[in-house]
Amino acid sequence: MIEGLQEMLKRDFNITFKDVDLLDAAFTHASYVNETPERKKKLKYYERIEFLGDAVMQLCVSEYIYEHYPEMPEGKMSRLRAAMVRADSFSKFAIECHFNEYIRLGKGEEKGNARQRPSLLCDIFESFIGALYLDQGKDEVVRFISKVIFPKLELGWFDHMMDNKTELQEVLQQNGECKIKYNEVNVTGPDNERVYTMNVVVNNEVMGEGTGRTKKAAEQMAAYQALKKLRK
Amino acid sequence: MIEGLQEMLKRDFNITFKDVDLLDAAFTHASYVNETPERKKKLKYYERIEFLGDAVMQLCVSEYIYEHYPEMPEGKMSRLRAAMVRADSFSKFAIECHFNEYIRLGKGEEKGNARQRPSLLCDIFESFIGALYLDQGKDEVVRFISKVIFPKLELGWFDHMMDNKTELQEVLQQNGECKIKYNEVNVTGPDNERVYTMNVVVNNEVMGEGTGRTKKAAEQMAAYQALKKLRK
Repeated sequence: MIEGLQEMLKRDFNITFKDVDLLDAAFTHASYVNETPERKKKLKYYERIEFLGDAVMQLCVSEYIYEHYPEMPEGKMSRLRAAMVRADSFSKFAIECHFNEYIRLGKGEEKGNARQRPSLLCDIFESFIGALYLDQGKDEVVRFISKVIFPKLELGWFDHMMDNKTELQEVLQQNGECKIKYNEVNVTGPDNERVYTMNVVVNNEVMGEGTGRTKKAAEQMAAYQALKKLRK
Repeated sequence: MIEGLQEMLKRDFNITFKDVDLLDAAFTHASYVNETPERKKKLKYYERIEFLGDAVMQLCVSEYIYEHYPEMPEGKMSRLRAAMVRADSFSKFAIECHFNEYIRLGKGEEKGNARQRPSLLCDIFESFIGALYLDQGKDEVVRFISKVIFPKLELGWFDHMMDNKTELQEVLQQNGECKIKYNEVNVTGPDNERVYTMNVVVNNEVMGEGTGRTKKAAEQMAAYQALKKLRK
């Protein structure tokens, strides 16, 4: 049993796990299991639970956005969701919840400062969500993230992450230099109701097209389509 | 009301929607709404519902994999989920369910053969799932996909899509030619228990590293890590 973890969850979030082994597994890194060979077959680590937690978070966040922003178009909903479920967002939430203090790590990883590593913190946040879902169901997960994440949405925490053009550039440049260009494809409507269609061309190939009331909005949509294509 | 849709759902899947407007919206393309300006403010189209349906599918498929393959490592679970929720899988399911016959399209899109377009069919499949979730909850969605999708998993439908090396190559080559190379990083363990560590190098940059009992398995894991990095 991980010392203090249950007490902290009870005190800070009023959460009491039925299956304590599941909770422990959610906070246990493979490196810890690898160092306790005699218990190896019994001890579980977080990776599979994190896989489930990732999908639970996607749904809870999607449902929240769907319900609370009834007029928001799909493109913007997707950008907002992507901003909220980013690894760097989750790693901040993990620290805020003090989850980092309870992770079980192998000695080598501990020395390598894994406890501060954003990707591990993100994993632990997701695996906690997965365990909470398995132990108590979706409503309890929603209650937890209504405390930890949703208030930050209203405070505008995620607004600056919703720039698709920047994101597209970052993704493409991971594979080396490339030429990204936005072109006007079409303009329709009267003066006060212009609709612009822009496309984004990467190394002479059209990667996405979008429409909007301003050129900038249309470019953002085009970049969003290109990102969607890259992720397919 | 979309003619015949409710009857088909009742007959083929024993599903009766409470909110028929929601069901209609799930099968309505924006091009149809745009051609009926006088009803424009009232009619809804599928995009927002599809956004939610996408997340519902992710969770239902994840939960199924988590429960039915208790020994499957996380990397393989992720590859299997990705294969199951691919656009080309969903578009096949949409046709199998005859959803294509009930989509409401604008005249231009209809002439442009949008009704056969895999990306639209995938969207409609997801939006139906979103509407079903909103109208009847997750258990009913699970019942539906237990009929339509999960039996195909047992039949091995998705096995051929789980090749990460091929997928990595496809993703990278969308952005033009590049050099992909797999290298041996480390070999440990006795003869009969070798563990290989391989990395994947793209244009001289290490993009991922993986371990496995064979070189091929380690390469697949390295390719999987690279894909994960590209999608971040």
